[in-house]
Amino acid sequence: MAQQCQPRPYCEHGHQQLPVCDYPALGAHLFHFLVRAAGRGQTLRHFGQVVLDDWLGRHLWQHGDGAYGATHRQDILHTKRLVDDPDRGCPMNLYRQRVAKLQQAMLREGVDVFLASTQVNMQYLSGYSEPPLERLMFLLTPKQGDPVWLVPALSADGIARNPAGWEPRYVWHDSDGPTRALEACTRDYDLETATIAVDDEMPAAFLLALQEALPAALFRRGGELIGCVRAVKDVEELRNMREAARLTDEALAAGLERCVPGYSEWAVAIAIQRALFESGSKLAFGIPIVAAGEMSAMPHHTTSQRPLQRGDVVLIDYGGVYEGYCSDITRVASVGRAPDEAKAIYEIVYEAHMRAREAAKPGVPAREVDAVARRVIEKAGYGDYFIHRTGHGIGLSVHEPPYLAQTYEGLLEVGHCFTIEPGIYLPGKFGIRIENVYAITERGCESLNADPPTQIREID
Amino acid sequence: MAQQCQPRPYCEHGHQQLPVCDYPALGAHLFHFLVRAAGRGQTLRHFGQVVLDDWLGRHLWQHGDGAYGATHRQDILHTKRLVDDPDRGCPMNLYRQRVAKLQQAMLREGVDVFLASTQVNMQYLSGYSEPPLERLMFLLTPKQGDPVWLVPALSADGIARNPAGWEPRYVWHDSDGPTRALEACTRDYDLETATIAVDDEMPAAFLLALQEALPAALFRRGGELIGCVRAVKDVEELRNMREAARLTDEALAAGLERCVPGYSEWAVAIAIQRALFESGSKLAFGIPIVAAGEMSAMPHHTTSQRPLQRGDVVLIDYGGVYEGYCSDITRVASVGRAPDEAKAIYEIVYEAHMRAREAAKPGVPAREVDAVARRVIEKAGYGDYFIHRTGHGIGLSVHEPPYLAQTYEGLLEVGHCFTIEPGIYLPGKFGIRIENVYAITERGCESLNADPPTQIREID
Repeated sequence: MAQQCQPRPYCEHGHQQLPVCDYPALGAHLFHFLVRAAGRGQTLRHFGQVVLDDWLGRHLWQHGDGAYGATHRQDILHTKRLVDDPDRGCPMNLYRQRVAKLQQAMLREGVDVFLASTQVNMQYLSGYSEPPLERLMFLLTPKQGDPVWLVPALSADGIARNPAGWEPRYVWHDSDGPTRALEACTRDYDLETATIAVDDEMPAAFLLALQEALPAALFRRGGELIGCVRAVKDVEELRNMREAARLTDEALAAGLERCVPGYSEWAVAIAIQRALFESGSKLAFGIPIVAAGEMSAMPHHTTSQRPLQRGDVVLIDYGGVYEGYCSDITRVASVGRAPDEAKAIYEIVYEAHMRAREAAKPGVPAREVDAVARRVIEKAGYGDYFIHRTGHGIGLSVHEPPYLAQTYEGLLEVGHCFTIEPGIYLPGKFGIRIENVYAITERGCESLNADPPTQIREID
Repeated sequence: MAQQCQPRPYCEHGHQQLPVCDYPALGAHLFHFLVRAAGRGQTLRHFGQVVLDDWLGRHLWQHGDGAYGATHRQDILHTKRLVDDPDRGCPMNLYRQRVAKLQQAMLREGVDVFLASTQVNMQYLSGYSEPPLERLMFLLTPKQGDPVWLVPALSADGIARNPAGWEPRYVWHDSDGPTRALEACTRDYDLETATIAVDDEMPAAFLLALQEALPAALFRRGGELIGCVRAVKDVEELRNMREAARLTDEALAAGLERCVPGYSEWAVAIAIQRALFESGSKLAFGIPIVAAGEMSAMPHHTTSQRPLQRGDVVLIDYGGVYEGYCSDITRVASVGRAPDEAKAIYEIVYEAHMRAREAAKPGVPAREVDAVARRVIEKAGYGDYFIHRTGHGIGLSVHEPPYLAQTYEGLLEVGHCFTIEPGIYLPGKFGIRIENVYAITERGCESLNADPPTQIREID
């Protein structure tokens, strides 16, 4: 691209939220950066943990005159950050570290080979993914040495550019089918009697084909294995998690302002969805859960056309996404003045939430954080109405290890990201849940969302 | 809802594309419809193949004063159609017909039980689906009799409302795990030594758990089995397919007008994505493929920042979605005047496309349509440059049976929907592909997209 079109200063071209005068230095920075790269005879791919040309493609717009613009302020800011500090680390080292962690876990669990076939796991281990199709494709990570790809010929070109640089060694053509490629792979990695972990979401069609080709191999669920590796976020991932939380927080206002009589649950949900979309984010899962009045007592309520009425408790639960990383938040508002009982219950849940986050430190069992929240609620006499676990890990997936649950065995580690979301649900009356995403740090934990309000937000 | 808020005439409330005066009758229609339903003591769920209250929730907006509005003209038009003709058929009969077709196919193939766990297949067989989570859940269709659900307790309420009315008979709680529910199901349906087909995309974690619980059962890929059932679209599905194609066609203009020097492939793709979104649709797969100049010779090119230059051939391939049903189109434009060689190649591909669609009739082998297109291209001397199959079935999935390929065995039937998309790719020069979606009718086939242009669209 450096040869094809010369970048010019950023401009707005109708994107009103981006007055170019706020970012006078950006164009020059980017230009010098590109010249420097071209001068070294290097491609942009060599720079930074985020590949700059991909970034430009996904976040900026190119105008008819060749200049770039952006729809979202954040994209300009992040491009600036990237351009200021292009050598922040080599992506190859990043993926090598992730693979090394996976291989340690495989050794512990007696797994010979890990096969990744889902977008999330391919992305995590190689920086590359494509939507799953019907053709057999996986990234094979052996106990030792570099991962290799088995891929259909149609995808080979794209995969050859995977940022981690893993080799697409076994390529098969539609005319032959995958059998011969799989045989070569079987020979090279002794798959015939291997213990093979597959990601939990590998399509059954792939697994059945592999089982038929390798009848003596032992196939195992690999979700927990790679989940525990993915649970520990690195610096770049934490940056993305923070940004996802910030965008999630920002979208809340659009929902809260519709918590007035006459609007429906649905209207509140759609307003939040729009706000996320307008900031360049999207929903991490389904449509926002908006549960009003007695509906808020059902933790998995389906957002409905129910109109909001004065005195309703309104529970709002949703999450945004940034660079594939998910966030998750639950807030409680009321339409007009909140009922006294709801205020009292909110105080208990708030106390449980804050105690739990104080308890979350490196080395603490995840289930202990659950126990802390549960004790507060039990002591207040509502133990029977706290009907779910206290939280779940979150990252490239909305639900992943660690789980803050009585039955989960692991300890919290620096870099773990998870929700804390205690709740009390009084059937026929209302429900209260307060949820933030936290990251474990050396000293304790950092809230990625803004702190939860100390009381129900009363909307008038 | 009929009791909770009385519908009023539609209004715009800032949605400028919907002058309410165009639809004066709609409010009254809807009101009478609701009154009629309430008078019979029935819920809205009993009416129409599309459930009206779901429809309202997903397509219309409720304003602060309780009135409805819509962002998209099509949603008003379709609501009107639905209200005019609410008794168009009972959804229960619809799902019963689909299950009966599946059971016939199971009988032919010697399959005892079909387990559906993907959103698409649950939706098709029951009208209900939810995003896949880590908890075991499936809809079991036996050889005879009604399907039943095995579901986690958290989802039981939602599933109890499945439009087909299939019973959530095996419900399991987090505290127990799914073992006992699965045992009961195993007893009732003799699963221990059964031949069990699963959908191709069932998550490996589910399949491995089932294989462990049922070591003597035979598990098989069920994708082709249910795919052949889904391939034959009913009247409501054809309506959705037509609408998906119409929205897809409409979005093309936004892309074509950016096929001018200075814009990038990416800019063309984003313009199409926006146009789809603004009409209430979305992309059926990835980002639109926009491949300019020599890039158009790569059928799976990844849309890039490459700027368009005068004389470039620009190949554009994407699809929209309507009510879950997907469309797919490929068009070729040129930036300014098209090269003479490209014009000549376009004529050959156009001829292949038109001959193929003339050949597509009920009872014709799908591979014969492929052969017709291939013969035209071979006769012109470009057989080696037509490097993929002629088409694929399309519906709730972008790729599904029937496949118009040399290796596919099936015959075309009334209700089949598929693409015809011959192409010629000259490496280092350009590629031409012309793609429409067709539906097989009694007499031949109907093009769901607008007819392809007889020559390359030259953009100036």
